[in-house]
Amino acid sequence: MSALPEVKALVFDVFGTVVDWRNGIARDSRTFLARHGRSDIDPHRFADAWRKRYQPAMEEVRSGRRPFTRLDVLHRENLDGVLKDFGVSTAGVGEEELEWLNRAWHRLDPWPDTIPGLIRLKAKHFIAPLSNGNILLLANMAKRAGIPWDAILGAEAAKAYKPQPEAYLRTCEILGLQPAQVALVAAHNGDLAAARKCGLSTAFVLRPNEHGADQATDTKAEQDWGAIATSFEDLADKLGC
Amino acid sequence: MSALPEVKALVFDVFGTVVDWRNGIARDSRTFLARHGRSDIDPHRFADAWRKRYQPAMEEVRSGRRPFTRLDVLHRENLDGVLKDFGVSTAGVGEEELEWLNRAWHRLDPWPDTIPGLIRLKAKHFIAPLSNGNILLLANMAKRAGIPWDAILGAEAAKAYKPQPEAYLRTCEILGLQPAQVALVAAHNGDLAAARKCGLSTAFVLRPNEHGADQATDTKAEQDWGAIATSFEDLADKLGC
Repeated sequence: MSALPEVKALVFDVFGTVVDWRNGIARDSRTFLARHGRSDIDPHRFADAWRKRYQPAMEEVRSGRRPFTRLDVLHRENLDGVLKDFGVSTAGVGEEELEWLNRAWHRLDPWPDTIPGLIRLKAKHFIAPLSNGNILLLANMAKRAGIPWDAILGAEAAKAYKPQPEAYLRTCEILGLQPAQVALVAAHNGDLAAARKCGLSTAFVLRPNEHGADQATDTKAEQDWGAIATSFEDLADKLGC
Repeated sequence: MSALPEVKALVFDVFGTVVDWRNGIARDSRTFLARHGRSDIDPHRFADAWRKRYQPAMEEVRSGRRPFTRLDVLHRENLDGVLKDFGVSTAGVGEEELEWLNRAWHRLDPWPDTIPGLIRLKAKHFIAPLSNGNILLLANMAKRAGIPWDAILGAEAAKAYKPQPEAYLRTCEILGLQPAQVALVAAHNGDLAAARKCGLSTAFVLRPNEHGADQATDTKAEQDWGAIATSFEDLADKLGC
């Protein structure tokens, strides 16, 4: 029997689950840093440092200390901070170029199995991102890479950042479905745990190289998720798509 | 020279502009009415009566008398009212069947030029609905008909119903664009006038049969809109796509 027979919509974590953010950010950071005479900086270290500011920036919003602010704005503030930390002078760097680098998050590439898997999953399910990325970021990413979403959902539509319950529950409301009819697909056990607490169904997809060769977190399913797969194509097999 | 050279995103009115709501609603209403022994009711009159409750229902939200409520809910309240007006008893009609009829708005067909036109327009522009329809309605419609939106925008994302300025301006914010870089495409002069007041660019597409053979409104462009076209394919010609 197929897994998750009651599920009508699949909603996806994006950074790490659908796309390879680390190599994508390193690629465009390398270009930027070389152009400004800082080829000495390891672009993967730069990417990791930029990403490290992601959770604390959203925490300002989750805590209520800051009104809902879309991720493009947080990414840009974090970029300014990480450039400073690495001692990269932005005097003489045009605003346009900084915006180009900030939009590296719009230009991330899917993992090789992502699109073949999504095409199969889409035939039987409504598919949409449930990401902390903002609508434009996710839509530009989809347009560039050909990701066939049925709609762009997530933090900006729900006006709440994961793992706050509202991010999951308002997404189900938008879809007109009960939480159990919606499955979160994610490579992160913490995200799935928060979704499960809200009553959503769950599917884990292993992404063992999201953080590079030495990845120490999310190297396996830590609960009995509704489906457990090694790729989106494997997930399509398990869901009978 | 092409029209609207500064425009990066095209946002579309949907009911009447992208899809033929009147024949679609009449089609499914005919099925429902026949099934319940009321083939005497003209399904186009039924569709017109249902649609007539659309603006007053949204006005409750626009005025602030009611919190933002998605269109599926308003459509359903309006359906219950119109069934009563036509003396159609719903005793013994299952909830599932009423929901099926309410979702006729998710199953509307595009005009014949819509999809060929959108495919051309999409190659040069970001394309999205800016409709009062809710996200699920628009996404289900797109999935069924193959409408190639880059994202689903509109009232539910903006949390405001057209023609309130917030509906237009928040859509531009989501797109990260200045209003002049965004063009509203609509078959309705009033919608375009409200968008223009907010600084958006404008494109009129004539839909002379939206209201049937005797249509009396929106039979021509009433201002010097940024582009004026007779179909989406004509619009693609005029925008150099």
